Amino acid sequence: MTVAYEGLSEDYNALLADAKEAMTRAYTPYSHFQVGAALLDDEGRVHYGCNIENAAYGPTNCAERTALFSAIANGLRPGKFKAIAVIGRTDGPIAPCGVCRQVLVELCPPDMPVVMGNMQGDWAIATVSELLPGAFTPASLDSTGL
Amino acid sequence: MTVAYEGLSEDYNALLADAKEAMTRAYTPYSHFQVGAALLDDEGRVHYGCNIENAAYGPTNCAERTALFSAIANGLRPGKFKAIAVIGRTDGPIAPCGVCRQVLVELCPPDMPVVMGNMQGDWAIATVSELLPGAFTPASLDSTGL
Amino acid sequence: MTVAYEGLSEDYNALLADAKEAMTRAYTPYSHFQVGAALLDDEGRVHYGCNIENAAYGPTNCAERTALFSAIANGLRPGKFKAIAVIGRTDGPIAPCGVCRQVLVELCPPDMPVVMGNMQGDWAIATVSELLPGAFTPASLDSTGL
Amino acid sequence: MTVAYEGLSEDYNALLADAKEAMTRAYTPYSHFQVGAALLDDEGRVHYGCNIENAAYGPTNCAERTALFSAIANGLRPGKFKAIAVIGRTDGPIAPCGVCRQVLVELCPPDMPVVMGNMQGDWAIATVSELLPGAFTPASLDSTGL
Repeated sequence: MTVAYEGLSEDYNALLADAKEAMTRAYTPYSHFQVGAALLDDEGRVHYGCNIENAAYGPTNCAERTALFSAIANGLRPGKFKAIAVIGRTDGPIAPCGVCRQVLVELCPPDMPVVMGNMQGDWAIATVSELLPGAFTPASLDSTGL
Repeated sequence: MTVAYEGLSEDYNALLADAKEAMTRAYTPYSHFQVGAALLDDEGRVHYGCNIENAAYGPTNCAERTALFSAIANGLRPGKFKAIAVIGRTDGPIAPCGVCRQVLVELCPPDMPVVMGNMQGDWAIATVSELLPGAFTPASLDSTGL
Repeated sequence: MTVAYEGLSEDYNALLADAKEAMTRAYTPYSHFQVGAALLDDEGRVHYGCNIENAAYGPTNCAERTALFSAIANGLRPGKFKAIAVIGRTDGPIAPCGVCRQVLVELCPPDMPVVMGNMQGDWAIATVSELLPGAFTPASLDSTGL
Repeated sequence: MTVAYEGLSEDYNALLADAKEAMTRAYTPYSHFQVGAALLDDEGRVHYGCNIENAAYGPTNCAERTALFSAIANGLRPGKFKAIAVIGRTDGPIAPCGVCRQVLVELCPPDMPVVMGNMQGDWAIATVSELLPGAFTPASLDSTGL
């Protein structure tokens, strides 16, 4: 049974439920901290993500990035995403890390909603650009004048 | 039409052809260097990977890791992989980077073959453990005695 | 001669000048996009940082992180920092990437100023927590209840 | 008192002792697995490194990379290194992770010795190129013909 997120739309409730299912696929032998993500593309398909850790820590990949990378590898083009939901066992709604925010900025529309939840029914929504204000973007790199 | 890799098994030729297709999905606005990967699981399914770059460079993800992360997020368990093929526009067979080798060591059998190719029909095969001799592994971390 | 940043304090002008000097040490054979950083610790010492790229892109390290990691390796403790300045050839003040913001959140006081500049005298200041609102923090990880 | 590494040169014993000191500066609230590194440049100076973790795991930086990045930020040029020593609480000599090997390949001579030790007097030496056979190098990227 899926936790219901009160006050959240049916669509986003469904996306959080997908994220919760993806969460069970996490590979977390080091932190035991499982995170799941579900990415909705503009054709209505859902791409799953979970965190996948590494003994060397640095090569660890988070759930949000896993979902995004998987979608691109399966043929989706950057920008063609509608929403992403993320869930974990946090006190409040889980917060994407800075690395994932940087990848969201690169691959998603700035006003795309990021739906953040936890296992107790708490949720929050922020847009991609709200999560990384004044982001370093492809345009920043172009501004070198090289 | 797919380049034929002479002397390479039909199965691995097919896997390199899959990798070549995945290569077309790469997102490489900064390097313009496309890489594709195809990961064969123990149920005979193929998982695709391509490199996905980022304006900040560091969050860039390679083709091999994309394939591995996507497979895990879709329900495959670590260790349940049979082979991975990688292809790029290199002079000789493409070489996985150290980050990908570290992730291969974490998620694949040590004797799993990594099939490396290029666009001119060159190829080479090495096992995961040959690519990262004396690797830092989950066992290394356990050896702390903590 | 150092570009003067009008309206910015003398101390932060000096820190930006240090960052500009560190910028000349950048290793950027791939992007040719040099960034410099200067980190002021609570004993008044300055730690330098520059970006250091890698053929595999992913292992690239940014200027801000280089300064922070160098300071820690030289004996500074997390939290013992007063300000960081960052500079690059951007149109407006340079923006730290999401990875660096995540590391700033981990190692610096939330209200520590990040002084961002460019080569034309533009500047902006934001605190660490403003750069990564609602960050994923050590406390997030603790909240798993494990 | 420093553990003596029998059969290892006095110089490398000294470098391992430096690495051991750097190890005490590690920031490892998540793994509690401390690693230290000491990098000898061609002017005889030693640059220190330790691992610095992050709640988000991915932005974690290892000891070897910390030493290399710090050296570059302090004015050393890539290639101007003579040896690096690494130490950790492992059963046998510690092994650098794949990310660090990739960075070593980028910034150090291929035949530069990597001295690996543990706290019980075990040691091993390998060259940079032995640690990442058939590495993906700057030349790989150039071979695209773009």
